[in-house]
Amino acid sequence: MDVRELVGQARLGRPRAVARLISLVENAVENAVDATGPEEGDRAASAVASRALREAMAELATGTARPYTARVIGLTGSPGVGKSTSTGMLIRAFRRRGSRVGVLAVDPSSPFTGGALLGDRVRMQDHATDPEVFIRSMSSRGHLGGLAWATPQALRVLEAAGCDVILVETVGVGQAEVEIARLADTTVVILAPGMGDGVQAAKAGILEVADVLVVNKADRDGVQATVRELRNMTGLVETPWRPPIVTTVASKGEGADDLLAALDKHQAYLEESGEARRRRLARARDEIEAIALAQLRSRFAVLHADRLDALAERLLGAETDPYAAADDLIAALG
Amino acid sequence: MDVRELVGQARLGRPRAVARLISLVENAVENAVDATGPEEGDRAASAVASRALREAMAELATGTARPYTARVIGLTGSPGVGKSTSTGMLIRAFRRRGSRVGVLAVDPSSPFTGGALLGDRVRMQDHATDPEVFIRSMSSRGHLGGLAWATPQALRVLEAAGCDVILVETVGVGQAEVEIARLADTTVVILAPGMGDGVQAAKAGILEVADVLVVNKADRDGVQATVRELRNMTGLVETPWRPPIVTTVASKGEGADDLLAALDKHQAYLEESGEARRRRLARARDEIEAIALAQLRSRFAVLHADRLDALAERLLGAETDPYAAADDLIAALG
Repeated sequence: MDVRELVGQARLGRPRAVARLISLVENAVENAVDATGPEEGDRAASAVASRALREAMAELATGTARPYTARVIGLTGSPGVGKSTSTGMLIRAFRRRGSRVGVLAVDPSSPFTGGALLGDRVRMQDHATDPEVFIRSMSSRGHLGGLAWATPQALRVLEAAGCDVILVETVGVGQAEVEIARLADTTVVILAPGMGDGVQAAKAGILEVADVLVVNKADRDGVQATVRELRNMTGLVETPWRPPIVTTVASKGEGADDLLAALDKHQAYLEESGEARRRRLARARDEIEAIALAQLRSRFAVLHADRLDALAERLLGAETDPYAAADDLIAALG
Repeated sequence: MDVRELVGQARLGRPRAVARLISLVENAVENAVDATGPEEGDRAASAVASRALREAMAELATGTARPYTARVIGLTGSPGVGKSTSTGMLIRAFRRRGSRVGVLAVDPSSPFTGGALLGDRVRMQDHATDPEVFIRSMSSRGHLGGLAWATPQALRVLEAAGCDVILVETVGVGQAEVEIARLADTTVVILAPGMGDGVQAAKAGILEVADVLVVNKADRDGVQATVRELRNMTGLVETPWRPPIVTTVASKGEGADDLLAALDKHQAYLEESGEARRRRLARARDEIEAIALAQLRSRFAVLHADRLDALAERLLGAETDPYAAADDLIAALG
């Protein structure tokens, strides 16, 4: 099947075409890494994957009447707070409304946490037979920067497949997850009671990224203390949007309506304030820049590998310094 | 103090000069991020920081007789396995040999785990008064890629200060930590017994990066099971170097000699096999490439911000696709 046909199938909502297009994106991340390897074959593979992906993205980005209209909701939080269960709850809540839902589970911290993610994938299999739910996971064996440019492309595929809502779940709460969460219109940070110093440590970070705060596992001890602590934190925020705090027991579906209401309220705020457009512009800007840098990186690896090797030798021999060497490499771009 | 003087002071092993130079590196990471922000001030700050850093690195990289001679040992492992205690044990072991020791604690997962790292810093204060031990931590508020280019620069500063051994401790075990660990000559992965599925999940990742495996907290139950599991894993490795497994109780200093012996054996292997030179060349190559990309990124942000904005608007309006837009941005480089 050629790329144009594949895109056509994805637009009709055919799951296999959607899956293949997202694989194309994922492979490109992996090849972008391989392209910096020493093998000639790696470099060739990179070039091939890029061509198909370019075509697909050109089709998807320009052949659409209403781009950037799917609602993108990021979910993040420490391991064990119940991210996948919460994602599952939100899938059901949006399905009850009749929305077509896409889920992108992004794992930036492989290789070491691959096992945990696999468990999550299995848990989401509840929805595997629902033709209105598209679940895909992406992991990066390579550079974290790769996911920053791959995620918007995967979002574009899911949007083309008619998803009204796309949930982006990231495993973990590090910088990478935050970056990916920021690709969303609304970022939900999930916590659980009894995390001890966790909340304290996470203060600054949470306030930076959370549009909605969820205290999950609200049937456990300490939920009120966690809510109180969060309320004190958000009370200090001097922004037009103060993140609401929602308590849920995702495993029982409790709090789903409250969470949906909080998400809708934020969506309304985004539209009224013009922030929706600003966030989407920033997402587009980041994507373009990330692709440009990946292309340049690939040029260094493919076209200028010998020069880079020679410069590294000179740096090892104290014959140049890293900045001068970098200038020399940039000059090679012509 | 001008940059040349600062470098001179660092070469004499003056801790404050070393600290200031590493701060220069760390600030550059932060500014590299700011440079992509919308504020004119951010962009100016970025340019200024780069100039001083360039000068410092030029001095450090070329004005040295024996660059890349310090032994760089990376330590990584999940939270709670005792990384900082192990680092402390290694500091003492190398000090007993009369080595000057540098420690770089790198936290790629801020903002959310900042609190944990602070605790580690405090624990290493035991060595704060030893003039032959330099301890610095670096965190990244911004792009993870930032640490990939900042770490080799910080290593260069510590080497100039006469450190024979530099320990690079990374918090966590994700992809970012692995990338940073790979900047080392020898990478030590630390585990603790009773991590349950952890070892299983981490299999692939550990075997990819570990040169030496440490099972710390070896006075706890389950140490033999963990060692056995690791031995089965490493038994499958078909590489010239099979990672040895060392058991330690770092809090009591037990196993320090075994660990040192394993590190020395790996060092000898590196030198004999030519792998030492290959790793250092790869480190130099990565650093040059990372700086070149950061420079290009900064050019996009500083010189071509308007073009990037316009391209993002067009992408939002379905008038272009991300790859074509990226090509357009690259063309702006001239």
